Amino acid sequence: MERILDFLLLIDRFKTIERKGYIADGSRRETDAEHTWHMGLFALLLHKELGFEVDLGHTLTLILVHDLVEIHAGDTYAYDDAGLIGQAEREIAAAERLFADLPADLGANLHAWWREFEAGETTEARFAKAIDRMQGFAQNYNSKGLAWRENGIARERTRQRTDFPIAVDPALKSVIETLYRRADEERLWPE
Amino acid sequence: MERILDFLLLIDRFKTIERKGYIADGSRRETDAEHTWHMGLFALLLHKELGFEVDLGHTLTLILVHDLVEIHAGDTYAYDDAGLIGQAEREIAAAERLFADLPADLGANLHAWWREFEAGETTEARFAKAIDRMQGFAQNYNSKGLAWRENGIARERTRQRTDFPIAVDPALKSVIETLYRRADEERLWPE
Repeated sequence: MERILDFLLLIDRFKTIERKGYIADGSRRETDAEHTWHMGLFALLLHKELGFEVDLGHTLTLILVHDLVEIHAGDTYAYDDAGLIGQAEREIAAAERLFADLPADLGANLHAWWREFEAGETTEARFAKAIDRMQGFAQNYNSKGLAWRENGIARERTRQRTDFPIAVDPALKSVIETLYRRADEERLWPE
Repeated sequence: MERILDFLLLIDRFKTIERKGYIADGSRRETDAEHTWHMGLFALLLHKELGFEVDLGHTLTLILVHDLVEIHAGDTYAYDDAGLIGQAEREIAAAERLFADLPADLGANLHAWWREFEAGETTEARFAKAIDRMQGFAQNYNSKGLAWRENGIARERTRQRTDFPIAVDPALKSVIETLYRRADEERLWPE
Protein backbone atom coordinates (compact mmCIF):
# COMPACT_ATOMS: atom_id res chain seq x y z
CA MET A 1 0.00 0.00 0.00
CA GLU A 2 2.89 2.39 0.69
CA ARG A 3 4.16 2.00 -2.87
CA ILE A 4 0.72 2.78 -4.27
CA LEU A 5 0.48 5.81 -1.98
CA ASP A 6 3.94 7.03 -3.02
CA PHE A 7 2.95 6.70 -6.68
CA LEU A 8 -0.26 8.68 -6.04
CA LEU A 9 1.80 11.41 -4.37
CA LEU A 10 4.44 11.41 -7.14
CA ILE A 11 1.97 11.89 -9.98
CA ASP A 12 0.96 15.27 -8.55
CA ARG A 13 3.65 16.49 -11.00
CA PHE A 14 1.17 15.83 -13.81
CA LYS A 15 -0.58 19.05 -12.68
CA THR A 16 2.47 21.08 -13.70
CA ILE A 17 3.10 19.60 -17.16
CA GLU A 18 1.90 22.15 -19.69
CA ARG A 19 0.52 21.43 -23.14
CA LYS A 20 0.65 23.92 -26.01
CA GLY A 21 -3.10 24.60 -25.89
CA TYR A 22 -4.70 27.17 -23.58
CA ILE A 23 -7.62 27.04 -21.19
CA ALA A 24 -10.71 28.77 -22.59
CA ASP A 25 -10.03 32.22 -21.16
CA GLY A 26 -6.53 32.20 -22.72
CA SER A 27 -4.90 33.12 -19.40
CA ARG A 28 -2.53 30.14 -19.28
CA ARG A 29 -1.70 26.84 -20.93
CA GLU A 30 -3.67 23.71 -20.13
CA THR A 31 -1.98 21.04 -18.03
CA ASP A 32 -1.86 17.31 -18.63
CA ALA A 33 -4.08 16.71 -15.58
CA GLU A 34 -6.74 19.07 -16.93
CA HIS A 35 -6.55 17.56 -20.42
CA THR A 36 -7.01 14.08 -18.95
CA TRP A 37 -9.90 15.20 -16.73
CA HIS A 38 -11.62 16.81 -19.71
CA MET A 39 -11.15 13.67 -21.83
CA GLY A 40 -12.94 11.71 -19.08
CA LEU A 41 -15.99 13.91 -19.49
CA PHE A 42 -15.85 13.64 -23.29
CA ALA A 43 -15.91 9.84 -22.85
CA LEU A 44 -18.74 9.90 -20.32
CA LEU A 45 -20.96 12.20 -22.40
CA LEU A 46 -20.23 10.75 -25.85
CA HIS A 47 -19.93 6.99 -25.36
CA LYS A 48 -23.67 6.34 -25.75
CA GLU A 49 -23.77 8.33 -28.99
CA LEU A 50 -21.38 5.97 -30.79
CA GLY A 51 -22.45 3.46 -33.41
CA PHE A 52 -20.64 0.72 -31.47
CA GLU A 53 -20.51 -0.52 -27.88
CA VAL A 54 -17.64 0.45 -25.61
CA ASP A 55 -16.83 -0.48 -22.02
CA LEU A 56 -16.83 2.89 -20.27
CA GLY A 57 -14.72 1.71 -17.33
CA HIS A 58 -12.03 0.41 -19.65
CA THR A 59 -12.13 3.57 -21.79
CA LEU A 60 -11.71 5.74 -18.68
CA THR A 61 -8.86 3.49 -17.50
CA LEU A 62 -7.00 4.00 -20.79
CA ILE A 63 -7.63 7.76 -20.59
CA LEU A 64 -6.31 7.97 -17.02
CA VAL A 65 -3.12 6.15 -18.00
CA HIS A 66 -2.50 7.47 -21.54
CA ASP A 67 -0.26 10.50 -20.84
CA LEU A 68 1.23 9.60 -17.42
CA VAL A 69 4.60 8.82 -19.02
CA GLU A 70 4.93 12.57 -19.68
CA ILE A 71 5.81 12.89 -15.97
CA HIS A 72 9.25 11.70 -17.09
CA ALA A 73 9.16 12.34 -20.88
CA GLY A 74 7.45 15.76 -20.95
CA ASP A 75 4.76 16.83 -23.42
CA THR A 76 5.57 16.76 -27.15
CA TYR A 77 3.59 19.21 -29.29
CA ALA A 78 1.59 17.37 -31.92
CA TYR A 79 2.70 19.81 -34.65
CA ASP A 80 6.40 19.90 -33.66
CA ASP A 81 7.96 17.66 -36.32
CA ALA A 82 11.43 17.89 -34.75
CA GLY A 83 10.10 17.11 -31.27
CA LEU A 84 8.19 14.11 -32.61
CA ILE A 85 11.49 12.47 -33.64
CA GLY A 86 12.47 10.22 -30.78
CA GLN A 87 9.17 10.76 -28.94
CA ALA A 88 8.29 7.06 -29.06
CA GLU A 89 11.69 6.02 -27.63
CA ARG A 90 11.53 8.69 -24.91
CA GLU A 91 8.08 7.57 -23.88
CA ILE A 92 8.95 3.87 -23.90
CA ALA A 93 11.86 4.59 -21.54
CA ALA A 94 9.65 6.85 -19.40
CA ALA A 95 7.03 4.09 -19.11
CA GLU A 96 9.63 1.56 -17.94
CA ARG A 97 10.78 3.97 -15.27
CA LEU A 98 7.38 5.23 -14.13
CA PHE A 99 5.46 1.96 -13.88
CA ALA A 100 8.37 0.27 -12.06
CA ASP A 101 7.46 2.47 -9.07
CA LEU A 102 4.25 0.47 -8.57
CA PRO A 103 3.85 -3.05 -7.12
CA ALA A 104 4.67 -5.47 -9.96
CA ASP A 105 1.13 -6.62 -10.82
CA LEU A 106 -0.33 -3.13 -10.85
CA GLY A 107 2.67 -1.73 -12.72
CA ALA A 108 2.29 -4.43 -15.38
CA ASN A 109 -1.40 -3.56 -15.76
CA LEU A 110 -0.72 0.15 -16.23
CA HIS A 111 2.08 -0.60 -18.64
CA ALA A 112 -0.25 -2.85 -20.68
CA TRP A 113 -3.02 -0.23 -20.69
CA TRP A 114 -0.59 2.43 -21.86
CA ARG A 115 0.58 0.14 -24.69
CA GLU A 116 -3.04 -0.65 -25.58
CA PHE A 117 -3.83 3.06 -25.88
CA GLU A 118 -0.72 3.70 -27.96
CA ALA A 119 -1.49 0.81 -30.34
CA GLY A 120 -5.07 2.12 -30.79
CA GLU A 121 -6.39 -1.23 -31.96
CA THR A 122 -9.03 -2.26 -29.43
CA THR A 123 -12.45 -0.60 -29.53
CA GLU A 124 -11.81 1.31 -26.30
CA ALA A 125 -8.32 2.38 -27.39
CA ARG A 126 -9.71 3.74 -30.67
CA PHE A 127 -12.39 5.68 -28.79
CA ALA A 128 -9.91 6.98 -26.19
CA LYS A 129 -7.42 8.00 -28.88
CA ALA A 130 -10.16 9.76 -30.86
CA ILE A 131 -11.09 11.68 -27.70
CA ASP A 132 -7.45 12.63 -27.12
CA ARG A 133 -7.39 14.31 -30.54
CA MET A 134 -10.90 15.77 -30.21
CA GLN A 135 -10.29 17.33 -26.82
CA GLY A 136 -7.12 19.00 -28.06
CA PHE A 137 -8.90 20.32 -31.15
CA ALA A 138 -11.95 21.49 -29.16
CA GLN A 139 -9.66 23.13 -26.62
CA ASN A 140 -7.96 25.15 -29.36
CA TYR A 141 -11.37 26.23 -30.64
CA ASN A 142 -12.53 27.01 -27.08
CA SER A 143 -9.50 29.26 -26.47
CA LYS A 144 -10.31 31.17 -29.68
CA GLY A 145 -7.55 29.58 -31.77
CA LEU A 146 -4.78 31.16 -29.69
CA ALA A 147 -2.34 28.23 -30.00
CA TRP A 148 -3.14 27.82 -33.72
CA ARG A 149 -2.23 31.44 -34.42
CA GLU A 150 0.77 31.46 -32.06
CA ASN A 151 2.23 28.44 -33.81
CA GLY A 152 1.05 29.23 -37.34
CA ILE A 153 -1.09 26.07 -37.60
CA ALA A 154 -3.20 26.44 -40.74
CA ARG A 155 -6.67 24.88 -40.98
CA GLU A 156 -5.48 22.11 -43.36
CA ARG A 157 -2.74 21.09 -40.97
CA THR A 158 -5.21 20.34 -38.17
CA ARG A 159 -6.56 17.49 -40.33
CA GLN A 160 -3.51 15.51 -39.09
CA ARG A 161 -5.28 15.45 -35.73
CA THR A 162 -8.94 15.34 -36.77
CA ASP A 163 -8.89 12.68 -39.51
CA PHE A 164 -8.67 9.98 -36.87
CA PRO A 165 -11.78 10.85 -34.78
CA ILE A 166 -13.69 11.51 -38.03
CA ALA A 167 -12.85 7.97 -39.18
CA VAL A 168 -13.76 6.37 -35.84
CA ASP A 169 -17.47 7.26 -35.70
CA PRO A 170 -20.15 9.46 -37.34
CA ALA A 171 -21.08 11.10 -34.01
CA LEU A 172 -17.48 12.14 -33.44
CA LYS A 173 -17.31 13.31 -37.05
CA SER A 174 -20.29 15.59 -36.44
CA VAL A 175 -18.59 17.11 -33.38
CA ILE A 176 -15.41 17.81 -35.37
CA GLU A 177 -17.38 19.29 -38.27
CA THR A 178 -19.28 21.60 -35.91
CA LEU A 179 -15.97 22.79 -34.47
CA TYR A 180 -14.55 23.50 -37.96
CA ARG A 181 -17.71 25.37 -38.94
CA ARG A 182 -17.59 27.52 -35.81
CA ALA A 183 -13.84 28.16 -36.13
CA ASP A 184 -14.44 29.26 -39.74
CA GLU A 185 -17.32 31.56 -38.77
CA GLU A 186 -15.29 33.10 -35.96
CA ARG A 187 -12.20 33.40 -38.21
CA LEU A 188 -9.90 31.74 -35.69
CA TRP A 189 -7.27 30.50 -38.18
CA PRO A 190 -3.93 32.23 -38.73
CA GLU A 191 -3.66 34.46 -41.85
CA MET B 1 -24.75 16.64 -30.34
CA GLU B 2 -24.37 20.43 -30.30
CA ARG B 3 -25.75 20.62 -26.76
CA ILE B 4 -23.30 17.98 -25.58
CA LEU B 5 -20.47 19.85 -27.29
CA ASP B 6 -21.53 23.16 -25.73
CA PHE B 7 -21.58 21.50 -22.31
CA LEU B 8 -18.09 20.07 -22.88
CA LEU B 9 -16.86 23.56 -23.83
CA LEU B 10 -18.63 25.22 -20.87
CA ILE B 11 -17.11 22.94 -18.24
CA ASP B 12 -13.64 24.22 -19.12
CA ARG B 13 -14.39 26.65 -16.24
CA PHE B 14 -13.79 23.74 -13.85
CA LYS B 15 -10.07 24.28 -14.54
CA THR B 16 -10.23 27.70 -12.90
CA ILE B 17 -12.13 26.78 -9.71
CA GLU B 18 -9.61 26.75 -6.88
CA ARG B 19 -9.74 24.59 -3.78
CA LYS B 20 -8.05 25.53 -0.51
CA GLY B 21 -5.35 22.89 -0.84
CA TYR B 22 -2.13 23.39 -2.80
CA ILE B 23 -0.34 21.36 -5.44
CA ALA B 24 2.69 19.54 -4.05
CA ASP B 25 5.26 22.24 -4.75
CA GLY B 26 3.10 24.80 -2.90
CA SER B 27 3.25 27.23 -5.84
CA ARG B 28 -0.52 27.56 -6.27
CA ARG B 29 -3.86 26.15 -5.17
CA GLU B 30 -5.20 22.96 -6.70
CA THR B 31 -8.16 23.26 -9.08
CA ASP B 32 -11.34 21.21 -9.17
CA ALA B 33 -10.27 19.63 -12.48
CA GLU B 34 -6.95 18.49 -10.97
CA HIS B 35 -8.63 17.19 -7.81
CA THR B 36 -11.07 15.16 -9.92
CA TRP B 37 -8.30 13.83 -12.19
CA HIS B 38 -6.30 12.77 -9.13
CA MET B 39 -9.33 11.05 -7.59
CA GLY B 40 -9.66 9.00 -10.78
CA LEU B 41 -6.17 7.63 -10.28
CA PHE B 42 -6.83 6.92 -6.59
CA ALA B 43 -9.87 4.88 -7.72
CA LEU B 44 -7.97 3.05 -10.46
CA LEU B 45 -5.03 2.11 -8.21
CA LEU B 46 -6.95 1.30 -5.03
CA HIS B 47 -10.16 -0.41 -6.15
CA LYS B 48 -8.60 -3.90 -6.25
CA GLU B 49 -7.22 -3.47 -2.71
CA LEU B 50 -10.68 -3.14 -1.15
CA GLY B 51 -12.37 -5.86 0.86
CA PHE B 52 -15.47 -5.53 -1.36
CA GLU B 53 -16.21 -5.45 -5.10
CA VAL B 54 -16.82 -2.16 -6.88
CA ASP B 55 -17.69 -1.36 -10.47
CA LEU B 56 -14.77 0.80 -11.58
CA GLY B 57 -16.66 2.41 -14.48
CA HIS B 58 -19.47 3.48 -12.18
CA THR B 59 -17.03 4.73 -9.53
CA LEU B 60 -15.21 6.84 -12.14
CA THR B 61 -18.54 8.15 -13.43
CA LEU B 62 -19.50 9.36 -9.94
CA ILE B 63 -16.06 10.92 -9.51
CA LEU B 64 -16.28 12.77 -12.85
CA VAL B 65 -19.68 14.20 -11.91
CA HIS B 66 -19.28 14.79 -8.15
CA ASP B 67 -18.02 18.40 -8.08
CA LEU B 68 -19.27 19.75 -11.44
CA VAL B 69 -21.98 21.79 -9.68
CA GLU B 70 -19.16 23.98 -8.34
CA ILE B 71 -19.04 25.54 -11.83
CA HIS B 72 -22.07 27.51 -10.60
CA ALA B 73 -21.86 27.11 -6.80
CA GLY B 74 -18.10 27.56 -6.26
CA ASP B 75 -15.94 25.50 -3.91
CA THR B 76 -16.80 25.45 -0.21
CA TYR B 77 -13.87 24.79 2.13
CA ALA B 78 -14.50 21.68 4.19
CA TYR B 79 -13.39 23.44 7.40
CA ASP B 80 -15.32 26.70 6.80
CA ASP B 81 -18.28 26.26 9.17
CA ALA B 82 -19.91 29.51 8.01
CA GLY B 83 -19.49 28.61 4.32
CA LEU B 84 -20.98 25.18 4.92
CA ILE B 85 -24.29 26.79 5.96
CA GLY B 86 -26.41 26.89 2.84
CA GLN B 87 -23.92 24.81 0.81
CA ALA B 88 -26.46 22.04 0.18
CA GLU B 89 -29.10 24.51 -1.07
CA ARG B 90 -26.59 26.33 -3.28
CA GLU B 91 -25.43 23.08 -4.83
CA ILE B 92 -28.96 21.76 -5.39
CA ALA B 93 -29.79 24.96 -7.29
CA ALA B 94 -26.50 24.78 -9.19
CA ALA B 95 -27.23 21.17 -10.22
CA GLU B 96 -30.67 22.13 -11.58
CA ARG B 97 -29.09 24.87 -13.64
CA LEU B 98 -26.03 22.97 -14.84
CA PHE B 99 -27.59 19.67 -15.87
CA ALA B 100 -30.45 21.46 -17.68
CA ASP B 101 -27.85 22.46 -20.30
CA LEU B 102 -27.60 18.83 -21.46
CA PRO B 103 -30.11 16.84 -23.54
CA ALA B 104 -32.84 15.67 -21.13
CA ASP B 105 -31.84 11.99 -20.82
CA LEU B 106 -28.16 12.70 -20.31
CA GLY B 107 -28.90 15.59 -17.94
CA ALA B 108 -31.15 13.31 -15.86
CA ASN B 109 -28.37 10.70 -15.69
CA LEU B 110 -25.78 13.20 -14.51
CA HIS B 111 -28.22 14.65 -12.00
CA ALA B 112 -28.93 11.15 -10.64
CA TRP B 113 -25.21 10.32 -10.41
CA TRP B 114 -24.54 13.55 -8.58
CA ARG B 115 -27.34 12.74 -6.10
CA GLU B 116 -26.01 9.19 -5.71
CA PHE B 117 -22.56 10.51 -4.84
CA GLU B 118 -24.00 13.04 -2.38
CA ALA B 119 -26.14 10.40 -0.64
CA GLY B 120 -23.10 8.12 -0.31
CA GLU B 121 -25.19 4.99 0.12
CA THR B 122 -24.29 2.73 -2.80
CA THR B 123 -21.01 0.81 -2.74
CA GLU B 124 -19.50 2.96 -5.49
CA ALA B 125 -20.70 6.20 -3.90
CA ARG B 126 -19.12 5.21 -0.58
CA PHE B 127 -15.82 4.42 -2.30
CA ALA B 128 -15.93 7.62 -4.39
CA LYS B 129 -16.75 9.73 -1.33
CA ALA B 130 -13.96 8.10 0.66
CA ILE B 131 -11.56 8.95 -2.17
CA ASP B 132 -12.79 12.56 -2.22
CA ARG B 133 -11.78 12.91 1.43
CA MET B 134 -8.56 10.90 1.03
CA GLN B 135 -7.30 12.85 -1.96
CA GLY B 136 -7.86 16.14 -0.13
CA PHE B 137 -6.07 14.85 2.96
CA ALA B 138 -3.18 13.35 0.94
CA GLN B 139 -2.90 16.58 -1.03
CA ASN B 140 -2.48 18.57 2.17
CA TYR B 141 0.21 16.15 3.29
CA ASN B 142 1.85 16.28 -0.17
CA SER B 143 2.04 20.09 -0.07
CA LYS B 144 3.75 19.89 3.34
CA GLY B 145 0.69 20.90 5.36
CA LEU B 146 0.61 24.40 3.90
CA ALA B 147 -3.20 24.74 3.90
CA TRP B 148 -3.45 23.18 7.39
CA ARG B 149 -1.08 25.79 8.82
CA GLU B 150 -2.54 28.69 6.80
CA ASN B 151 -6.01 27.92 8.09
CA GLY B 152 -5.02 26.73 11.58
CA ILE B 153 -6.40 23.22 11.06
CA ALA B 154 -5.21 21.12 14.00
CA ARG B 155 -4.55 17.39 13.64
CA GLU B 156 -7.72 16.43 15.57
CA ARG B 157 -9.88 18.55 13.31
CA THR B 158 -8.83 16.60 10.20
CA ARG B 159 -10.60 13.57 11.66
CA GLN B 160 -13.81 15.19 10.39
CA ARG B 161 -12.53 14.33 6.90
CA THR B 162 -10.65 11.09 7.58
CA ASP B 163 -13.12 9.18 9.78
CA PHE B 164 -15.19 8.36 6.71
CA PRO B 165 -12.53 6.67 4.54
CA ILE B 166 -11.22 4.89 7.65
CA ALA B 167 -14.70 3.42 8.23
CA VAL B 168 -15.17 2.39 4.58
CA ASP B 169 -12.32 -0.12 4.25
CA PRO B 170 -9.16 -1.40 6.00
CA ALA B 171 -6.96 -0.66 2.94
CA LEU B 172 -8.11 2.96 2.90
CA LYS B 173 -7.60 3.07 6.68
CA SER B 174 -3.99 2.00 6.22
CA VAL B 175 -3.40 4.77 3.65
CA ILE B 176 -4.82 7.39 6.02
CA GLU B 177 -2.77 6.07 8.95
CA THR B 178 0.41 6.20 6.87
CA LEU B 179 -0.33 9.82 5.99
CA TYR B 180 -0.91 10.74 9.67
CA ARG B 181 2.31 9.01 10.67
CA ARG B 182 4.31 10.84 8.01
CA ALA B 183 2.68 14.20 8.80
CA ASP B 184 3.57 13.67 12.48
CA GLU B 185 7.18 12.75 11.68
CA GLU B 186 7.55 15.76 9.40
CA ARG B 187 5.81 18.05 11.94
CA LEU B 188 3.40 19.47 9.40
CA TRP B 189 0.66 20.49 11.85
CA PRO B 190 0.12 24.06 13.02
CA GLU B 191 1.50 24.94 16.50
